[in-house]
Amino acid sequence: MKKVRIALLGLGNVGRGVWKILQFNQDEIRKRSGYDIEVAKVLVRDMNKARGVDIPEELLTTDFNDIIEDSSIKIVVEMMGGIEPAKEYMLEAMKKKKHIVTANKMVLATEGDQLFETADKEGVMFYYEASVAGGIPIISGINESLTANKIEQLYGIVNGTTNYILTKMALDGMEFEEALEEAKEKGYAEADPTSDIEGFDAAYKLAILSSLAFGTKVEFDQVYREGITNITSEDITYAKEFGYVIKLLAIVKEINNKLQLRVHPTFVPATHPLANVYNSFNAIFIKGNAVGDLMLYGRGAGDLPTGSAVVGDIISILRNNVDLESYLPSVKNNLWHKEFIDMKDVECKYYIRATVEDKPGVLGELTTMFGKNNVSLRSVIQRGKEQGEEGVSLVLVTHFTKEENLLNAIDLINIAPYVVKVDNIIRIENF
Amino acid sequence: MKKVRIALLGLGNVGRGVWKILQFNQDEIRKRSGYDIEVAKVLVRDMNKARGVDIPEELLTTDFNDIIEDSSIKIVVEMMGGIEPAKEYMLEAMKKKKHIVTANKMVLATEGDQLFETADKEGVMFYYEASVAGGIPIISGINESLTANKIEQLYGIVNGTTNYILTKMALDGMEFEEALEEAKEKGYAEADPTSDIEGFDAAYKLAILSSLAFGTKVEFDQVYREGITNITSEDITYAKEFGYVIKLLAIVKEINNKLQLRVHPTFVPATHPLANVYNSFNAIFIKGNAVGDLMLYGRGAGDLPTGSAVVGDIISILRNNVDLESYLPSVKNNLWHKEFIDMKDVECKYYIRATVEDKPGVLGELTTMFGKNNVSLRSVIQRGKEQGEEGVSLVLVTHFTKEENLLNAIDLINIAPYVVKVDNIIRIENF
Repeated sequence: MKKVRIALLGLGNVGRGVWKILQFNQDEIRKRSGYDIEVAKVLVRDMNKARGVDIPEELLTTDFNDIIEDSSIKIVVEMMGGIEPAKEYMLEAMKKKKHIVTANKMVLATEGDQLFETADKEGVMFYYEASVAGGIPIISGINESLTANKIEQLYGIVNGTTNYILTKMALDGMEFEEALEEAKEKGYAEADPTSDIEGFDAAYKLAILSSLAFGTKVEFDQVYREGITNITSEDITYAKEFGYVIKLLAIVKEINNKLQLRVHPTFVPATHPLANVYNSFNAIFIKGNAVGDLMLYGRGAGDLPTGSAVVGDIISILRNNVDLESYLPSVKNNLWHKEFIDMKDVECKYYIRATVEDKPGVLGELTTMFGKNNVSLRSVIQRGKEQGEEGVSLVLVTHFTKEENLLNAIDLINIAPYVVKVDNIIRIENF
Repeated sequence: MKKVRIALLGLGNVGRGVWKILQFNQDEIRKRSGYDIEVAKVLVRDMNKARGVDIPEELLTTDFNDIIEDSSIKIVVEMMGGIEPAKEYMLEAMKKKKHIVTANKMVLATEGDQLFETADKEGVMFYYEASVAGGIPIISGINESLTANKIEQLYGIVNGTTNYILTKMALDGMEFEEALEEAKEKGYAEADPTSDIEGFDAAYKLAILSSLAFGTKVEFDQVYREGITNITSEDITYAKEFGYVIKLLAIVKEINNKLQLRVHPTFVPATHPLANVYNSFNAIFIKGNAVGDLMLYGRGAGDLPTGSAVVGDIISILRNNVDLESYLPSVKNNLWHKEFIDMKDVECKYYIRATVEDKPGVLGELTTMFGKNNVSLRSVIQRGKEQGEEGVSLVLVTHFTKEENLLNAIDLINIAPYVVKVDNIIRIENF
């Protein structure tokens, strides 16, 4: 059997998963790839750290030169995370004609162009299935299976931490802080959860998926982003009452050749398949003009699911002939030029929860303010006053309206004397 | 731009879908494949039939020789259905070094081996994404994305007709016959619905998926098969009461290196993602030892969804270098030898509905018969007698038991004097 030598950069969660899969699925991998894969080197930061996997010590190195200068290493697998030195290492490896597999969403979302261009120029293969949604084959789905489609919309639950928190809030009645604590205890949230709960992680993934699905360059900072820290159990209860569940969605839609990109908490109809995606699971829904509705559901994180995607990419490289002098890449990322839609021009339905003084005429005055800004209301719920509360809760649901109009109305409402507070505004998607 | 000439065999539902997609997504297909695709010939049975698509008459032919003898045609797309002449045409085309795309599940499930071998021998590419579950990329999912996994189980809703019928029964309270009529009216069921409602269609698809997922040869007749014609609204009501929904599932599991293959109505927990797959949608659930749970959901039939898979395959061939003299196939189907588990050795939980005489002691005697055959019961529901009914309904749910033991108990029960009829036996899966 042919042999191939590879190097792993990083031996964290994903790196250990890859190592384990290469061991316990050795027979499957050999037969399916036609190769015996030998891990020649593993780059680590600290030689003395406990590893949790049974890896021979002589494979470990802290010096990237041990890898880059070894011409017998054909594939470099980057699982370090972060932008530098990951990007620099990948570029150097490409220049040495090594094929690359990466699980790094951040570097792809921010520096992807340079990596794609260098891979093209050097004629090396560059695979990154693991960078978005762990074990779910969404990258190959878009890049290889849906090529006959014009993709119209893509929206999904791409962050397991926030989905876990929202599940606990919806099913177990927890408040946000309590659910976050539990997520930390169970290892679903990091000590500093900012990247997850503020939607950065989802926005990185959306930038990558949008670039591929729409064949255009999408920068991370073109994605509108809102996290889930403002969601309360009250919002979740109202959502249920209206027949919805609240999910943190990453959404991209093409409208008149322009893209709108946004990550925010969203009212999703309770009958939609995404509504039934619980706990830390991820799912991505795609509408193509030929395939119609398609959803991919699975584990978006974890050592083995993410490792499954990484090792799948390694096998793809081996099957595509790892020894070719120059590989002709099949996927181009700049096929079309697309404009982006400003958030103020996005049209949505909105859920608005506000606390107002319990006086006659308040509802009429608020309704007038919406009307003046061309926002028409679909339903209003006013809850009776409970003891000790300052004001009463008013929940409004609008018909489709431009975000600009809504925000203008909200500006007026915010300064109205009988309005205690606009508690929350959440977009509603009916897809 | 490079040009490639292709031929379509068949201009039915799928053929028309492919023709339409090649027209309305021409720009996408050109940019993604790097080729201008020209349909050179379309094989039809009758030159004078109305087509429903705007296709130039000079492309139509009834003579396969016009295609096979034209060396400028590089790809033959088979969408005729049935075994012959589809198989013969594909074999002939392979021998003329034409690459093949097929949407034909029947020929793959029964004659796949000969087609794979001939493609290998002739060095041509052979793609068949559209043969199972229409637009859902399940074939490439298994063959390309999940290669790092040992797949442990695969189960899914792979027949849209029966899922539509079961949805109507569950949500609208219809009986089987009424739902079948509606399915016919809406075009979801054919005039002769046998292949769908008796589970043949699902069994063909399961044979194909199992071959790929387990890298072994699976014949269609190794699949145990039961249709949905016995399901009544009573069963559906009881299922709901127990927290389940009834779906026609195609199931394959590997247990101790042996495969069990079965298509039958199944109690699925109401919280399982498959329970929320409604109407004519399909969904396939896979458990891999690295990726964990994965589900692919989408349109399993229809001109455009199936056409999406066919055109995707054409683009894959173009990207893999359609002009290569000899193509080295990456997917082998006989990597392992697996034994099959006889249906009598399958272990399941069972739902049994029987009509018995309303006499004291009946329940005790029945319970004893189960006990004697090592079948232990989890719950029993005995419904009060309604006017005009012959006997009363008794519903039993077992713990895990060998099918052989269950059938032995049922044999005894069937001949017991106080048993009017065993109405239905449905397997329960908790996955």
